Amino acid sequence: MVVRVRELGSNHFCVDQTDPRAVRIAKSLPWYGPKYSPHDVPSFYDVSGITENPEAFREVIEVFVERYRAQGADGPTHVAGFDARGFLFGPSIAMALNIPFVMIRKAGKLPGVLVSSGKYVTEYSTDETVMRLGSVREGDRVVLIDDLIATGGTAIAGFNLVDQLGAKVHEFAAMVSLPFLDGVKKIHEYADGKFADVPCFTVVDDSTIGADMGRDPPEGTPRIVPASDAARVLAEIDAARSA
Amino acid sequence: MVVRVRELGSNHFCVDQTDPRAVRIAKSLPWYGPKYSPHDVPSFYDVSGITENPEAFREVIEVFVERYRAQGADGPTHVAGFDARGFLFGPSIAMALNIPFVMIRKAGKLPGVLVSSGKYVTEYSTDETVMRLGSVREGDRVVLIDDLIATGGTAIAGFNLVDQLGAKVHEFAAMVSLPFLDGVKKIHEYADGKFADVPCFTVVDDSTIGADMGRDPPEGTPRIVPASDAARVLAEIDAARSA
Repeated sequence: MVVRVRELGSNHFCVDQTDPRAVRIAKSLPWYGPKYSPHDVPSFYDVSGITENPEAFREVIEVFVERYRAQGADGPTHVAGFDARGFLFGPSIAMALNIPFVMIRKAGKLPGVLVSSGKYVTEYSTDETVMRLGSVREGDRVVLIDDLIATGGTAIAGFNLVDQLGAKVHEFAAMVSLPFLDGVKKIHEYADGKFADVPCFTVVDDSTIGADMGRDPPEGTPRIVPASDAARVLAEIDAARSA
Repeated sequence: MVVRVRELGSNHFCVDQTDPRAVRIAKSLPWYGPKYSPHDVPSFYDVSGITENPEAFREVIEVFVERYRAQGADGPTHVAGFDARGFLFGPSIAMALNIPFVMIRKAGKLPGVLVSSGKYVTEYSTDETVMRLGSVREGDRVVLIDDLIATGGTAIAGFNLVDQLGAKVHEFAAMVSLPFLDGVKKIHEYADGKFADVPCFTVVDDSTIGADMGRDPPEGTPRIVPASDAARVLAEIDAARSA
């Protein structure tokens, strides 16, 4: 059964957050506060909650696959994923749809003749991404996939790359949405609305994930544990979690 | 049918290079010379030849899945993949085996409480990788997966991380082997043979891929093409390839 989808605004779609699958996926997504995150954000979502849970991972893949399969001959011709967490989901989706998976990589990683996004600013850093000339072509309809949409900076770089290659973005899709950062609005308003007609689709939003998914360890736990302490610290974390 | 495997040495296995699947996979793997590669290596293999070819991608996944499924109750309990190209293959393999996929990431990317490999030297750079405490545990049997084994530096970092977490590496597996760099020997000789009893398994070696898979474009083609030239340069590359 195709997942229930709500329209949040023009070309802005989200899985109905009461759908049992959305709830199960959200409740498989732990988050950490700034002390235990690579970046200074209120909640850093840990996609390993999905990849380490085969049932949840399968449900995430199915949500995307069912959506695009239902579009039949008007569906996407390619899935393109962002380095590195988009690589976790995109290939499985593309394989199920029997279409190519294309890499969008950080500069300095891909061989071949490339186009570049130029430098852009994300929530975390200044980045530059590239795609290979010929990886998508005129007439192709490309789903851009990432684990999360924050400010939309990475997404817009992907839109520009696909545009440079003469193809069209069919949809931008992410597993997690942080609505307070307005990423979808930023995509649609970018460059006088150049991409305003492209749907954006997300599976769960951070309010559905909830405070109970916080996984910060007991206070004082170091961020990096030496091998000699690993077993003891893990036992402490396990004990605190089950208390 | 489980793919035919040859034993190249003690705990060193490779798919029989005359197996039709090995040949098809090898002939889906383009390479570029140093001018069109991110690193100064004779042949930089482009994994997008696999990810952009759904049939080849499915065959690669099947080779690994059939191998581990055939091991039954003695098979792996986890698949762990290296940032970033190991993320392209590992999740699909883990999903098919119905076991968790665990990320081995470059430092500064993972949330939570971590163990670190410390700094190590690869063919290309100096790296440090991390895993999350609790992602694998005592008693777990972990397949380490990457797209390619070169000098074995990244692989050994993964062995050390799994070891720090109290688990055991079940096998190291890579799609492409560069036998002249002796990576498997380096894994088995590391730390007085600490990991000598762990099998290493690869699908294709670079001699099977062959010179005909070179994809350098016509001389003078820039490495990065501005958007305004993308269509013209692509047409030139296509014309040279079909000539």
